[in-house]
Amino acid sequence: MAEDMLLFWASGSPPCWRVMIALEEKNLQGYKNKHLSYEKNEHKNPDVLQINPRGQIPTFKHGDVVVNESIAACLYLQNPFKSQGTQLMPDSVSQQALVLQRMLEAEALQKKIYDVLFYEYYVPEAERHESLKLWESYLQQMGKGSYLTGKDFSLADVAMFPDLAYLPRFGTLRKERYPRLMEYYEMVKERPSVKASWPPTWREKEKEQDTLKDL
Amino acid sequence: MAEDMLLFWASGSPPCWRVMIALEEKNLQGYKNKHLSYEKNEHKNPDVLQINPRGQIPTFKHGDVVVNESIAACLYLQNPFKSQGTQLMPDSVSQQALVLQRMLEAEALQKKIYDVLFYEYYVPEAERHESLKLWESYLQQMGKGSYLTGKDFSLADVAMFPDLAYLPRFGTLRKERYPRLMEYYEMVKERPSVKASWPPTWREKEKEQDTLKDL
Ligand SMILES: N[C@@H](CCC(=O)N[C@@H](CS)C(=O)NCC(=O)O)C(=O)O
Ligand SMILES: N[C@@H](CCC(=O)N[C@@H](CS)C(=O)NCC(=O)O)C(=O)O
Repeated sequence: MAEDMLLFWASGSPPCWRVMIALEEKNLQGYKNKHLSYEKNEHKNPDVLQINPRGQIPTFKHGDVVVNESIAACLYLQNPFKSQGTQLMPDSVSQQALVLQRMLEAEALQKKIYDVLFYEYYVPEAERHESLKLWESYLQQMGKGSYLTGKDFSLADVAMFPDLAYLPRFGTLRKERYPRLMEYYEMVKERPSVKASWPPTWREKEKEQDTLKDL
Repeated sequence: MAEDMLLFWASGSPPCWRVMIALEEKNLQGYKNKHLSYEKNEHKNPDVLQINPRGQIPTFKHGDVVVNESIAACLYLQNPFKSQGTQLMPDSVSQQALVLQRMLEAEALQKKIYDVLFYEYYVPEAERHESLKLWESYLQQMGKGSYLTGKDFSLADVAMFPDLAYLPRFGTLRKERYPRLMEYYEMVKERPSVKASWPPTWREKEKEQDTLKDL
């Protein structure tokens, strides 16, 4: 199955990373993949453009099926590999609702985190903290040691973790202010799927220079 | 079933409209709903905030299940009402991939259309046309008279149509340049679900002043 798959990705790209976590969780190791350099603009290569007219990464193919949008790819994988690896989409209808809600919220969070990191002047100080406080409260509601939508790791975690990981990486996420978020971060980063898909460039360099103010 | 549902919405909001189309297609007419005035900031009312801490619309509840993100709500409805109304998510795995891909692309399109309409200076001229040309090409690939992902109306259409509708409404979408997009627009706008959920404020006023340049 996995040999039928092809992923174009770049190190540390949150949308790519989502797909990579989902593939790991579904035991789809061994998929064909090409690590591209974003800096060298390799995502505009003809190989990518042929599959993804936007020239964006992730660019993902399974047999003849093309699904490039990261959230779409994560959702897509749940059906053909339903009984393989981790069940990332729960059976219960109300749990499904929660997983879907958080996945799509993570999409919005990604944009905000970029804004915080790279376009600080775009997002007012208050709104920056608001976003994180909301996720802190989601985790608090679920109780200690839980994932985003309950006791099981789900697609919501797949979608959200790569966004979150940017904060401790490129700046500070204060434990006193966001105790559950930090605990969650520490827990999820030890997950085999997350370790297996950890951005290789992040491995090489322990920590980036601080681009982010103390949050 | 529908009496268990509550939707807070505003007229012409593309994310709200998606959910409204999906509800119509699933024969869930009769859902409880509250039409809020965005101008009066009614989406920050305590009634909304209680269900949706972001104070955004759509805010949607089905029994105790809360799903506020429009794409999440559209996806959510497919499972509990699988055999009711239009089947918006096809059974075939490869068709599912296509529907998911286009849904999530529509989310990105929405942002771009806002940019084009309200923040022209954000998006370079070339990129504006690029986005629309891509959707024109998607429709061309599917052949005359088709929907976004094939001969059947799907969640991809639910997600994308409200974005598209902004263009003929607030500006011009030139038929010579985008023949399939215009044909598609004319076809989908006649759909009962779309008519039933047509923004009431748009009914009252035939056309907005041109905020958009000739595209
Ligand atoms: N909505 C897309 C976003 C993909 C995306 O923005 N990828 C970035 C890298 S993180 C990219 O390829 N940017 C290049 C471009 O947009 O030209 C997804 O979730 O897959
Ligand atoms: N990602 C959300 C977006 C919802 C959204 O942006 N709604 C707008 C109205 S169209 C809103 O309520 N904005 C008020 C705010 O963000 O404070 C969805 O798809 O449901």
